[in-house]
Amino acid sequence: MYRTFTCGELRISDVDKEVTLAGWVQRSRKMGGMTFIDLRDRYGITQLVFNEADNLDLCDRANKIGREYVIQVKGAVKERFSKNAKMETGDIEIIVSELKVLNTSEVPPFTIEDKTDGGDDLRMKYRYLDLRRQCVRQNLELRHRMTMEVRKYLDSKRFIEVETPMLIGSTPEGARDFVVPSRMNPGQFYALPQSPQLFKQLLMVAGLDRYFQIVKCFRDEDLRADRQPEFTQIDCEMSFVDQEDILELFEGMAKHLFKTIRGIDLKDSFPRMSWADAMKYYGSDKPDLRFGMRFVELMDILKGQGFSVFDDANYIGGICAEGAASYSRKQLNELTDFVKKPQIGAKGLVYARVEADGTVKSSVDKFYSQDILQKMKGAFNAKPGDLILILSGGDAMKTRKQLSELRLEMAAQFGLRDKNKFACLWVVDFPLFEWSEEEGRLMAMHHPFTSPKLEDIPLLDTHPEQVRANAYDMVVNGVEVGGGSIRIHESALQDRMFKILGFTEEKAQKRFGFLMKAFKYGAPPHAGLAYGLDRWVSLFAGLDSIRDCIAFPKNNSGRDVMIDAPGELDPSQLDELNLKVDIKEKK
Amino acid sequence: MYRTFTCGELRISDVDKEVTLAGWVQRSRKMGGMTFIDLRDRYGITQLVFNEADNLDLCDRANKIGREYVIQVKGAVKERFSKNAKMETGDIEIIVSELKVLNTSEVPPFTIEDKTDGGDDLRMKYRYLDLRRQCVRQNLELRHRMTMEVRKYLDSKRFIEVETPMLIGSTPEGARDFVVPSRMNPGQFYALPQSPQLFKQLLMVAGLDRYFQIVKCFRDEDLRADRQPEFTQIDCEMSFVDQEDILELFEGMAKHLFKTIRGIDLKDSFPRMSWADAMKYYGSDKPDLRFGMRFVELMDILKGQGFSVFDDANYIGGICAEGAASYSRKQLNELTDFVKKPQIGAKGLVYARVEADGTVKSSVDKFYSQDILQKMKGAFNAKPGDLILILSGGDAMKTRKQLSELRLEMAAQFGLRDKNKFACLWVVDFPLFEWSEEEGRLMAMHHPFTSPKLEDIPLLDTHPEQVRANAYDMVVNGVEVGGGSIRIHESALQDRMFKILGFTEEKAQKRFGFLMKAFKYGAPPHAGLAYGLDRWVSLFAGLDSIRDCIAFPKNNSGRDVMIDAPGELDPSQLDELNLKVDIKEKK
Repeated sequence: MYRTFTCGELRISDVDKEVTLAGWVQRSRKMGGMTFIDLRDRYGITQLVFNEADNLDLCDRANKIGREYVIQVKGAVKERFSKNAKMETGDIEIIVSELKVLNTSEVPPFTIEDKTDGGDDLRMKYRYLDLRRQCVRQNLELRHRMTMEVRKYLDSKRFIEVETPMLIGSTPEGARDFVVPSRMNPGQFYALPQSPQLFKQLLMVAGLDRYFQIVKCFRDEDLRADRQPEFTQIDCEMSFVDQEDILELFEGMAKHLFKTIRGIDLKDSFPRMSWADAMKYYGSDKPDLRFGMRFVELMDILKGQGFSVFDDANYIGGICAEGAASYSRKQLNELTDFVKKPQIGAKGLVYARVEADGTVKSSVDKFYSQDILQKMKGAFNAKPGDLILILSGGDAMKTRKQLSELRLEMAAQFGLRDKNKFACLWVVDFPLFEWSEEEGRLMAMHHPFTSPKLEDIPLLDTHPEQVRANAYDMVVNGVEVGGGSIRIHESALQDRMFKILGFTEEKAQKRFGFLMKAFKYGAPPHAGLAYGLDRWVSLFAGLDSIRDCIAFPKNNSGRDVMIDAPGELDPSQLDELNLKVDIKEKK
Repeated sequence: MYRTFTCGELRISDVDKEVTLAGWVQRSRKMGGMTFIDLRDRYGITQLVFNEADNLDLCDRANKIGREYVIQVKGAVKERFSKNAKMETGDIEIIVSELKVLNTSEVPPFTIEDKTDGGDDLRMKYRYLDLRRQCVRQNLELRHRMTMEVRKYLDSKRFIEVETPMLIGSTPEGARDFVVPSRMNPGQFYALPQSPQLFKQLLMVAGLDRYFQIVKCFRDEDLRADRQPEFTQIDCEMSFVDQEDILELFEGMAKHLFKTIRGIDLKDSFPRMSWADAMKYYGSDKPDLRFGMRFVELMDILKGQGFSVFDDANYIGGICAEGAASYSRKQLNELTDFVKKPQIGAKGLVYARVEADGTVKSSVDKFYSQDILQKMKGAFNAKPGDLILILSGGDAMKTRKQLSELRLEMAAQFGLRDKNKFACLWVVDFPLFEWSEEEGRLMAMHHPFTSPKLEDIPLLDTHPEQVRANAYDMVVNGVEVGGGSIRIHESALQDRMFKILGFTEEKAQKRFGFLMKAFKYGAPPHAGLAYGLDRWVSLFAGLDSIRDCIAFPKNNSGRDVMIDAPGELDPSQLDELNLKVDIKEKK
């Protein structure tokens, strides 16, 4: 037994107990004839006291102990003279009588404190030291508590967790698969799942009724800040349910998490918004509803008045930033630069201030009468002191997305993206297809197994682009935390979908033959949803990147810099796998 | 809403309720003017009744419905005339008023019953139909309940579940890795983890204190009946614990599972047996203690009496099979054939019956006096009616393993391997090293991070083969359900281990450098254990193979015959991965 208590649990009621503690030396300081050591473990910090007057030798030894040494001490719990109200153990200290160094430590490359002096790269290389910092460790603890609560909730709803295989077949549709050469089947490869989609549908055919799994998924994509090659899904599927059933159940899960993890009791139903409205009013399929600034379309009011930029536009729309009329010329120029950034791509920004007297002063005054500007003001319901920001363009969807970025930027400038405020909603009625410029064909917006809305089925052959899907996303604070759909369960409709998506029968057979075959043996109506665990945890932890809630994340090149992986194989390994590395010259 | 009740929940108290059910047609039978359909879902079976006299058209439609059709019905709950006590819903039936076919089904390739007519291969190909069988589905439900209980127990002991990465580096030590080519790092590969060993140790260095994970692990081995290329571990690691702490905690977990899952209250502590004793008395490091037949060594008694087989042997040992003296010549010949099978490899079998009058009649009577045979009888404490079976050989360990097989066979023949009886034990004090004929060097028996027993450290340089490890296995009914060890936490000792294992400094650095580096920053004393989830579930389900408790298992060639994976890649995929397939001709 290395300890009788952890470093986080001793209280004033424990005074005079003889205890044994073990942990890491957080810091050490000498004051007069006393040495104080803060001893840390996962559970907290306890102050140790060594007194020269009592035991010179022991105190000498204590003075030689460096930061991050692992030590074990025995001693008596005493009440502190100067209590520390910020520490849970702040009422007591340990008068140490025995000291044992369990392990030494080199000086760590950065300080093990919430505010550390270590940069990102250094912290990732020494992730095992980074994880000693309370603020990082807490994210992992939060993650654990969230998965426990998710399982508790789903289990209470009779979901069964079923492990689906990790070594499956490659289906080169959508993102790239990671593949795994099979030694026993020369020249053949497994793929790692991008999601357990097909298997969970097969589990519904198998009559499992309610399935879930918290599961690693893999995508070989070029990485961005909030993507990882391996990520974790809360993957769910249910039989004999319609959209209403599934939204209710998973809204219930979200509320359960908000309540148990964050102590927030969300009483109201989440608002639902059609994809078309989300695009129209927020320019995004994942609108952040913590704040307003709904888009107002201005074609009727501003077009045809001689301002050629607007006259040539197919879309004119704007937002009203409350109280931003005081923005300086410099700030307005910066906003213009913001929307003109290549990542956003607007041509320019028109603005209009509502003055104290109610008149509107705009950057395009010479083209518009005060009458028209007042009409515009009315459309926004703008008040004195407000700033109206307007974008226009030839492509409505593109311009809306630009306006969405501007909206988010204005919210950030006004501190409206409060990490402790949560706005949840369901976005529903997604289009079934989207046009891929790259592929020159319609692609499934969600995936090829998504059911069209019954009433839109007649449009499948004539206007497939107008067909809406029984698909839904849960959005919290502008983050898509989960999404899913009612699935097609009839093989005839599934065949039709494959055809529209441009699969030849042979290709469809090769890739999804087993699913189509399974559907011939009594597939029940079913539907599902997958939550992104990493995103949920980040959201609850108030993190900017999912990386910080992952124990051992990879960097933007997909490398684990701590263990230095990936790496080269022994030639004998390649040989056994019947493979040769054949690196092409870079173009 | 597709249903108001499941097919498993209606009772006599629900009589006269109007209900909606949905499910699969288990069977259908016509009796006079009535049609009865058994409607099945995950929760049970409910009897539906269609009456020609009431509604001819509805009854006609019901008669056209085939097995495994998915239907939805509305109707009234009525008390049955002839109740079925075997079914939970056996007191009631549904008088159907509305019928809707949700999906049709082709005739399934085998019957969806516990006793099916489908062979293994067919069932695996149509696994989604196989999983509809209650006996198979129950295994998945059991698995779910077990993982829920494992998490509950470990969470209550302050363990945190942390996800360790799936894409790691290859460490070609022990079993073969599955590897994953990295597109973003040309010519480099990730490996899939054989276990999260290194990461869990790093989590201890990180101060996580108590870690667990229910996690997929991967081994590219040639497969046997109870091996799968991907399998699931309950992986645990703790800091500041000694062997006693860890055995107590995980024995507690086993008892929690026995109690909550099987309703068995194991009050006593699990017996502990040294590896040396396990080998000496049972010829196995995972002895099945549901029955006796402890080995008795007979060198002292039987050697040097002129029977050259024994005289030349370095080991003579036997077991006493109670009540088996009645075995016929044929049965004894079969036992001889059994031990001579190439997988077992004994040269022959000597037997001795204890007759009703207490005399011993053996197959080697001409070499041994009744005196000596009586002495042998005494050594076994054998009674009239018992059968003594003796093996000998030049290599004690090999002969013991042969005798172990014979012991298990005799227990099977006497029905002593009762699947509803459980005998648990800890095997402790494993050797730290074992000699590998193949590699011509000492190998770590457990893994290179296992700590030697403190008192054996002086032997490390002189007699490493005698050094015992702080390693332990939990064995239930002859199955190793889990194992672990105290880890080395000092880098100096770890360096020494690597040296004894024949790693050059460079090689050790390349493979485990990050761990050795981490150990320089205050690694705490730590220890861990990993349970095989698949084995635990099989044990509790009374299965002969782990395959039956896995939703989508692979066959002995590592293939998923349902989805037909692995398969060939598109040439463009190989191209992107900078790989060429290069199949050698078979030797």
